[in-house]
Amino acid sequence: MPQNQQFLLASRPQGQASVDNFSLVTSQTPPLQEGQVLVQHHYLSLDPYMRGRMNEGKSYTAPQPLGEVMIGGTVGQVVESRSPRFAVGDFVVGMGGWQLYSVVDGAPAGGLHKVDATRVPLSHYLGAVGMPGVTAWHGLLRIIEPRAGQTVVVSAASGAVGSAVGVLARERGCRVVGIAGGAAKCAYVKDELGFDDCIDYRAHADALSLSQALKTACPEGIDGHFENVGGMVLDAVMLRMNAFGRIAVCGMIAGYDGRPMPMAYPALILVQRLKVQGFIVSEHMEDWPPALKELGALVGSGRFSPRETVAEGLAAAPESFLGLLKGRNFGKQLVRLV
Amino acid sequence: MPQNQQFLLASRPQGQASVDNFSLVTSQTPPLQEGQVLVQHHYLSLDPYMRGRMNEGKSYTAPQPLGEVMIGGTVGQVVESRSPRFAVGDFVVGMGGWQLYSVVDGAPAGGLHKVDATRVPLSHYLGAVGMPGVTAWHGLLRIIEPRAGQTVVVSAASGAVGSAVGVLARERGCRVVGIAGGAAKCAYVKDELGFDDCIDYRAHADALSLSQALKTACPEGIDGHFENVGGMVLDAVMLRMNAFGRIAVCGMIAGYDGRPMPMAYPALILVQRLKVQGFIVSEHMEDWPPALKELGALVGSGRFSPRETVAEGLAAAPESFLGLLKGRNFGKQLVRLV
Repeated sequence: MPQNQQFLLASRPQGQASVDNFSLVTSQTPPLQEGQVLVQHHYLSLDPYMRGRMNEGKSYTAPQPLGEVMIGGTVGQVVESRSPRFAVGDFVVGMGGWQLYSVVDGAPAGGLHKVDATRVPLSHYLGAVGMPGVTAWHGLLRIIEPRAGQTVVVSAASGAVGSAVGVLARERGCRVVGIAGGAAKCAYVKDELGFDDCIDYRAHADALSLSQALKTACPEGIDGHFENVGGMVLDAVMLRMNAFGRIAVCGMIAGYDGRPMPMAYPALILVQRLKVQGFIVSEHMEDWPPALKELGALVGSGRFSPRETVAEGLAAAPESFLGLLKGRNFGKQLVRLV
Repeated sequence: MPQNQQFLLASRPQGQASVDNFSLVTSQTPPLQEGQVLVQHHYLSLDPYMRGRMNEGKSYTAPQPLGEVMIGGTVGQVVESRSPRFAVGDFVVGMGGWQLYSVVDGAPAGGLHKVDATRVPLSHYLGAVGMPGVTAWHGLLRIIEPRAGQTVVVSAASGAVGSAVGVLARERGCRVVGIAGGAAKCAYVKDELGFDDCIDYRAHADALSLSQALKTACPEGIDGHFENVGGMVLDAVMLRMNAFGRIAVCGMIAGYDGRPMPMAYPALILVQRLKVQGFIVSEHMEDWPPALKELGALVGSGRFSPRETVAEGLAAAPESFLGLLKGRNFGKQLVRLV
């Protein structure tokens, strides 16, 4: 029964989230019941959706309960098993939460899945070959439905989701243009991910200025857009959308703090006959197998080299998470726990 | 060669449209060329889309050219024919424009269609059994895709499009709630069109107040919404949309004058996984035959009694059109020309 460390949600944010919203506690892991598995987490995933769960009321799903372990994806190793489906030493991915160990039901309902640590580095099962990658795949292929030769734009392009969107669109023969914050991220998006262009939104004071830059980067307009941010970026992109354009709405980071974040030009939905559609990847489980197959092959073959920012130790999780919400991470944000 | 009267677009509106944007001219109809037909218009249709065409630049389609006859749907009778496809006396619907007569190519490309004046009153071919009716049919069935028992809301509910949306949804077993301006329109929507409820938006100062009224009228939330207006009405409806709701965007009257009209709560697209989609009915010609068949049967059988506001004489067209943009019409706005 190893000693566990856990971050609980201590309070709900009033406006911006802060480190005070989390509390670190120490406990013993409970003895396993029949059918259960004890997993030691190697990596914890930090993702923007967690901010939505910290709020009370209507969001993606039920809010994160106060006083309970913060939810989160984890990849790790089975260290004790009373389940016939898992053996000690198995590498597994699941929703272990912000803690060093988790006790999980080994039955399918427990949501624990074995992964092959020799195929791709273990951490990628929380990124490009995990939930963020499947998110990219679903939004791109099920909502944007891009055709070769069309132009696809993605915001937060250097992030875990955005980078996968761009690579998957690139593989389908699209012109791919990213939007990211800062010259270093834009260089990575172009030079390492192979996007056709990338625009630094920080160089633009407003949507009209960003829209001018998009006009240059997308000389034939924009057919599909994958939105991870909202606000000014979405406004700027909408001004350049072609007729019958599709916008997959995956994230609205700018709005999580409760500030009003209107869409400036909704009449363009009519004028350009756009489809604007929101989605949550966990509601489309049928897409996980084909998505993980394609993404695993892309990463395994080296055609897609996802970038990671790795914080060291569970104690670093709150600060890393707040930095993620401000765009301080570069690629997939992880916390190494072993 | 009868004497014709025509309204030309004299100037583009700066802000609100005014009667000064139109000029009335008199001319002789030209002699028919081989294949042409001379149509005497009985009714001219006035529709919100015309306001968009009066602007320069990006709208639904190409702008209405200055100095040319205002575009518009017409129903009338063939008074002279050099086309084998039409005989004198035939009743026809087409895009004759704001004038007493039109000379039209009798070939299919001319867009002239014979109608049966004994089946439904002639004027309805410009309304419920014409373009507005097909608009309702497409947006409801192709974008909202309502199922029996679901709740459908439609704005401008007493209008030509809105009334058809409600009747078609009612026929499919939906709970149907209208939004209209004023007690008389709301009474018509409930008592004569058979909607389950109708809300007078003029009784509400802002979107939150209107949203409260929608909560009462839609106790199980809103699954589908047909938007003819935009602005505050759309904001209020979005606050009540259920998960996986669909919004068909058909009109944004509030925005045609160039005033900014933001969408207040776009984050709901993500939170509730909404689909928001704009469309123009003329781009979906495949839907016209099934739509006109169903709508003709509903009107012909008396299950749908569309309301009309009929102005007398071509000279009344500009004022009637401006009144339509302000919601002064009650049901389908027409101009009688004979």
